[in-house]
Amino acid sequence: MIDKLSWIAIDWGSTHLRAYAMTQDNQLLNEKTSSQGMGSLTPTAFEPALLSLIADWLPPVSAGSHTDQPVSVIACGMVGARQGWQEAPYQQVPCQPISTSDMISVSTQDHRIDVKILAGVCQSEPADIMRGEETQIAGLIAETQLTTGTVCLPGTHSKWVTFNDGEIEHFATYMTGEVFSLLSQQSMLRHTVSSDDWDEAAFIEGVTHSIEKPEDLLSNCFRLRARDLLQDLAAASARSHLSGLIIGAELAGAQALFSGRPIALIGEPVLSDLYAQALHSLDISSHIFDPKQLTLQGLTQAYQTLVSI
Amino acid sequence: MIDKLSWIAIDWGSTHLRAYAMTQDNQLLNEKTSSQGMGSLTPTAFEPALLSLIADWLPPVSAGSHTDQPVSVIACGMVGARQGWQEAPYQQVPCQPISTSDMISVSTQDHRIDVKILAGVCQSEPADIMRGEETQIAGLIAETQLTTGTVCLPGTHSKWVTFNDGEIEHFATYMTGEVFSLLSQQSMLRHTVSSDDWDEAAFIEGVTHSIEKPEDLLSNCFRLRARDLLQDLAAASARSHLSGLIIGAELAGAQALFSGRPIALIGEPVLSDLYAQALHSLDISSHIFDPKQLTLQGLTQAYQTLVSI
Repeated sequence: MIDKLSWIAIDWGSTHLRAYAMTQDNQLLNEKTSSQGMGSLTPTAFEPALLSLIADWLPPVSAGSHTDQPVSVIACGMVGARQGWQEAPYQQVPCQPISTSDMISVSTQDHRIDVKILAGVCQSEPADIMRGEETQIAGLIAETQLTTGTVCLPGTHSKWVTFNDGEIEHFATYMTGEVFSLLSQQSMLRHTVSSDDWDEAAFIEGVTHSIEKPEDLLSNCFRLRARDLLQDLAAASARSHLSGLIIGAELAGAQALFSGRPIALIGEPVLSDLYAQALHSLDISSHIFDPKQLTLQGLTQAYQTLVSI
Repeated sequence: MIDKLSWIAIDWGSTHLRAYAMTQDNQLLNEKTSSQGMGSLTPTAFEPALLSLIADWLPPVSAGSHTDQPVSVIACGMVGARQGWQEAPYQQVPCQPISTSDMISVSTQDHRIDVKILAGVCQSEPADIMRGEETQIAGLIAETQLTTGTVCLPGTHSKWVTFNDGEIEHFATYMTGEVFSLLSQQSMLRHTVSSDDWDEAAFIEGVTHSIEKPEDLLSNCFRLRARDLLQDLAAASARSHLSGLIIGAELAGAQALFSGRPIALIGEPVLSDLYAQALHSLDISSHIFDPKQLTLQGLTQAYQTLVSI
């Protein structure tokens, strides 16, 4: 059992589960991570997966009685998807990133915890969905005190989001990271791009090609194989160029939709750096934010709103 | 042993091996197919794979003597790639599709056959390569007596080719079929598009979206998942739309490069039909040709040139 524990923040995505033990005044006491993401769990496996991570933080089972107040657990992310622990609804844009009234309560076998899952956000035209990113945007707004801005959240499914007056206004999702993984690991290109090294010039060249001619994406990808065979293209250059082509294809689409600047980048550091470079080559400035920090800040916002009701 | 056998035509791609027994006057006597494509074979496995298919056609080993003329075997396709049986060179564009002087001879343990592999064709700027398609283009030129035209060969790696004065002038390859396979079978979209049915209107809508805004490809793909979750999009519609988006992205690129019309389509019938529909929606007419027939015609051209030297 952990001293001064007041509540637990949970970031539960497709491939990870992150838990944060928090004090009453929202200081971080401890954190733990596991690879038991939503994608690998059946509905009944969520509670055991969570307890195996946070059991040490909770009072012992024998000490608990029905009169004890359970520990509040606030979760965001794919845990609330249809294939997750329990489906949480979507709020529809325009909307504030977090709505405590749209949270769902999950009934658990263990009465020491009181689990709530945040709603996702959807858009009907064009159809789009997010789960987890809305919490980071709430965190960004809390951290920067900005009420208007444009955000890019690079990743497996990159999102571009505009918010105005503190409300999410419009967003679009790009299959950028997933397409790069498939092409670099499973396609005919996998030998051509097999490298751990990086060639920044080749990356920027790829970005430029896709910005100038997004319609050539499928042929520019094949060209890497031809350059490998005909011109002994280095694997690091091929990999970097492929990354640039695919990220550039995302930017070509997003550029037209999201003219706000500068861009707030919320993603893993290496990826955010790449996007910052790519945006810089288009003369667009950006600021990089720590995704973990923003998620925690967003979950804290949700908890504060909840206890103030 | 097969009566009247004069020579054997071989179409040996990544995933298939097709053999045709031919008479002296180029009539088809028999044909056999196996799944022992180049992609599944190590260099020493090619001769056994070929013999296991054509052994019945050859004179018995015991009857052979060193004075017998071996049977000519002419092969095209990925069998001549660096990872194939033996590497055949590339001719560089502009060039006639088939050059018998660039053929390579493969030495075999079995002296009843005399194997030759046709050269591929390459282009240095932009870098591109083909192996096998050049033989179909030679067949198309022989069949239609056209000397100028534009060809689309849809498939895993679709090719667009212009020929002029009987020479291949320019070409480009698109990873269309491979990207569709990866997205429909291995990506997050695989459940959304899991259907054997077809929705022609959704296909054409996908083509149109990609032609109008090729920069939206990565977000239009994700949208199918959102429409599945929010609007119960039918899997057949999602699959057809995804196919349209990806074929449309190819056409958006090719349209700018290849203005020649009408287009000769050389591919599997179902796929050629789809491309014909997509092109029709862009007001471009096309004619469909049988790929097997054209390969055989191209290999026949090569054999005739060889014996006439």
